[in-house]
Amino acid sequence: MDVAGAIAALRPVLGDRLVLSQAVRAAHGANETWFPEALPDAVAFPGTTAEVSAILAACHAHRCPVTAHGAGSSLEGHHLAVQGGISLDTGRMNRVLAVNAEDLNVVVQPGLTREALNEELRATGLFFPVDPGANASLGGMAATRASGTTAVRYGTMRENVLALEAVMADGRVIRAGSRARKSSTGYDLAHLLVGSEGTLGIITELTLRLQGIPEAVSAATCRFATVEDAVNCVILTIQSGIAMARIEFADQMMVRGFNTLSQAGLPEEPHLFVEFHGSPGGVREQAEAFGEIAAEFGAGGFAWTDRAEDRARLWKMRHDAHYASATLAPGKRTVSTDICVPISRLAEAVTGAQADLARLGLVATIVGHVGDGNFHCAVRFDPDDGAEVARVHAFTDALAEAALALGGTVSGEHGIGLGKIKFMAAEHGEALGIMQAIKAGLDPRNILNPGKLLPGAD
Amino acid sequence: MDVAGAIAALRPVLGDRLVLSQAVRAAHGANETWFPEALPDAVAFPGTTAEVSAILAACHAHRCPVTAHGAGSSLEGHHLAVQGGISLDTGRMNRVLAVNAEDLNVVVQPGLTREALNEELRATGLFFPVDPGANASLGGMAATRASGTTAVRYGTMRENVLALEAVMADGRVIRAGSRARKSSTGYDLAHLLVGSEGTLGIITELTLRLQGIPEAVSAATCRFATVEDAVNCVILTIQSGIAMARIEFADQMMVRGFNTLSQAGLPEEPHLFVEFHGSPGGVREQAEAFGEIAAEFGAGGFAWTDRAEDRARLWKMRHDAHYASATLAPGKRTVSTDICVPISRLAEAVTGAQADLARLGLVATIVGHVGDGNFHCAVRFDPDDGAEVARVHAFTDALAEAALALGGTVSGEHGIGLGKIKFMAAEHGEALGIMQAIKAGLDPRNILNPGKLLPGAD
Ligand SMILES: Cc1cc2nc3c(=O)[nH]c(=O)nc-3n(C[C@H](O)[C@H](O)[C@H](O)COP(=O)(O)OP(=O)(O)OC[C@H]3O[C@@H](n4cnc5c(N)ncnc54)[C@H](O)[C@@H]3O)c2cc1C
Ligand SMILES: Cc1cc2nc3c(=O)[nH]c(=O)nc-3n(C[C@H](O)[C@H](O)[C@H](O)COP(=O)(O)OP(=O)(O)OC[C@H]3O[C@@H](n4cnc5c(N)ncnc54)[C@H](O)[C@@H]3O)c2cc1C
Repeated sequence: MDVAGAIAALRPVLGDRLVLSQAVRAAHGANETWFPEALPDAVAFPGTTAEVSAILAACHAHRCPVTAHGAGSSLEGHHLAVQGGISLDTGRMNRVLAVNAEDLNVVVQPGLTREALNEELRATGLFFPVDPGANASLGGMAATRASGTTAVRYGTMRENVLALEAVMADGRVIRAGSRARKSSTGYDLAHLLVGSEGTLGIITELTLRLQGIPEAVSAATCRFATVEDAVNCVILTIQSGIAMARIEFADQMMVRGFNTLSQAGLPEEPHLFVEFHGSPGGVREQAEAFGEIAAEFGAGGFAWTDRAEDRARLWKMRHDAHYASATLAPGKRTVSTDICVPISRLAEAVTGAQADLARLGLVATIVGHVGDGNFHCAVRFDPDDGAEVARVHAFTDALAEAALALGGTVSGEHGIGLGKIKFMAAEHGEALGIMQAIKAGLDPRNILNPGKLLPGAD
Repeated sequence: MDVAGAIAALRPVLGDRLVLSQAVRAAHGANETWFPEALPDAVAFPGTTAEVSAILAACHAHRCPVTAHGAGSSLEGHHLAVQGGISLDTGRMNRVLAVNAEDLNVVVQPGLTREALNEELRATGLFFPVDPGANASLGGMAATRASGTTAVRYGTMRENVLALEAVMADGRVIRAGSRARKSSTGYDLAHLLVGSEGTLGIITELTLRLQGIPEAVSAATCRFATVEDAVNCVILTIQSGIAMARIEFADQMMVRGFNTLSQAGLPEEPHLFVEFHGSPGGVREQAEAFGEIAAEFGAGGFAWTDRAEDRARLWKMRHDAHYASATLAPGKRTVSTDICVPISRLAEAVTGAQADLARLGLVATIVGHVGDGNFHCAVRFDPDDGAEVARVHAFTDALAEAALALGGTVSGEHGIGLGKIKFMAAEHGEALGIMQAIKAGLDPRNILNPGKLLPGAD
């Protein structure tokens, strides 16, 4: 590992876009959750695929770690250069390259954020639906296989990446996937890279599916007496095949956080936030079908809205859940859990988590993309309080075990990064050896985001 | 390569389920299209995952080729044991292992066929939507990333495989994916195996998404004066976001074939066959929206039906297209092309193909899942007529080039097998090297379906 050699080799390629200042390195070494700062030796700001290729070729030659950095919003320390080396910031590769409206797709650079993309699409009548709460980069979203509130309707990044360009560990540039809607020509490299967290290649271009902005949109909030009622309403709604565009759960504590951060003024009870997309008739039909099911579970306080501003406020509040949770225990850090279970096991999973949190005396909110069987507990804790840290670990370990016992997964959308490596063997068993063989075959010098995703890859 | 050694090792494991008879080997060496017979040395009929594992471990030890065989309906010679060795027939692994109705999924063995699965699901109100024309095995469908008439609405095998179990080249058994609707925990091995054509592992179990049988279904046929009108109608329908469940094109020659084989009694003009799924109101809305667009392109002869028997007859006729095409030139063989292009380029692609067929004087039908931008030319030819064979090659080469030039792919759903290997470099460029590295890493002795999918893998 010769980081200095790599930096010297990259100086002529990048000039002042190779930055060694303390401030820029510190910004790239920070994270939204609880991982210790981890500064790269240098931050590179390439502007083109050719420059990314040159960076990787040099780092390959000098065995220097390279960790891609999009918006740095990932929650498991994914983007931290824990073994030093280069942080490859995609921020300058942030252009829309082509809007193919007639094919319902768009070609973008990886550093473009999802909000900037939707801003650029505004005049076209089309939108890109995947929305993690954060204004993440599309490259980071692809790399973590992100989803968000609308995945129940439009899918995750897996379903929405049609094709991509990537630079592999030795600097080779490949294209995977096709602009056609389907293809059966060999190994699905595009979807091997989606979710690979920067450990197999750096994504330099993405072709993404777009959706037509629906003719009619209607959203509602409603509340339930118990968590079970709210979650059982979700289960039956999904089982009935009602085409929900969004169906989000928030527990009492989460609602308290929304009230504090966003002045939501909601009664402190479990809530569902829902949205319907379609034709006016279709939306009416779906909303009625949902209303009937919700009534069976004693839903009350229905507040409907068709106005875009009100909906924007609702989803902004929802997207700020991470920060709303923080208001419940200021000055602490957050662990954000992310299990996802088969929909029929969702009530067990949520009530089990609530019981464990209560038993362990932890301050936490629960919020989730429950239509997918996915929910998050944002647990607040003091990293200097050893006993509290131990209780947090007891909680997250038990939750991961519960997810696997229920036939689910330890991460529905956030990914593995540093924080969930310890669960990989339990979730994947022998398959882990296959992942390691792929990693070894495609990045034999282990320069791409070393220390992440796979146990023992470092 | 010690085939005899492998056979000797497998004898005690499989007993009389290891078959060396000429008749059984010949049945496994035949194909639906134009590839020469290629007999395996023996056919194995394992009944369990453990037996598949034992077969691969023995074949790995003896460097003996193993080619999985589902229903043998693939169109590019995929299942032919072109280097001899063992044909691994999944026909005895044909059980439904669990119907998880409350989670809208089902766990099956790979040898189960799609028709048998839907038969078993009949009482549940659920169905499995992916339908290649043939009554293929679900393992074969996953291995070729198959789709069919309903992919425009429900996706291909890629979107419908949630999880799988597979035996890798050395006999290791892995599980990939999860029963949860989404997951972000490492490399997407499930979707690396989907479409890998038995070259990376043998699929021994599949968890598949199910759909609720729609409340209302309506189907129609209509005809157009020209191919351009029919295809432009499709393009506008898809661009308008109308939720088609099926939208299939047939050219004049294809209609002639349907009339001959299935007594369809349709006027010999280009046709669309469409189907709508949803609530009664939703279906009405979609059908009206489609009708308006079709009218713009001069559609006539609309025949609507809501009766299940009529629909079954319609789709049976469509599914028999391969055999209907054969009636146009009895005694010859068929090459079935399979390009898929971005929807906006579909009219160019279809009319280009028609013009080339006419110019080269070839007898062929055109039929397609045009909602995906995918269509097939079934070209009839005499393998002993060298000049005709050369014209067929000129046609298929030009078609593949056109697909790539239009931003598409050389195979939308049939896969590569033997027949399309020669296009892999043109479609994938540098990415081919990455596919080869994965193959080398996961099957270092190249025992899994050698000679297929990848150039130079043998
Ligand atoms: C308030 C808040 C709410 C959130 N809500 C959600 C949610 O609802 N759903 C959800 O899925 N996530 C959510 N997240 C997590 C986060 O937004 C996602 O993980 C997001 O996809 C990360 O994108 P990013 O651009 O910030 O990537 P980064 O954090 O910069 O990087 C993430 C990983 O991707 C790699 N990477 C980045 N760019 C590339 C590239 N071009 N090529 C290859 N690898 C690359 C990095 O090396 C790193 O391993 C939330 C985060 C916050 C802070
Ligand atoms: C009339 C007709 C119409 C067709 N229409 C369509 C269509 O609309 N859409 C479409 O996609 N295809 C279509 N096809 C092609 C064919 O039906 C599909 O390719 C199908 O998926 C093949 O399944 P099979 O069980 O016959 O597989 P096989 O032909 O037996 O094998 C196909 C490949 O998969 C591998 N394989 C089989 N089982 C396994 C396993 N368990 N694990 C790993 N690898 C395995 C084999 O080694 C081989 O490489 C059609 C074929 C015919 C004859």
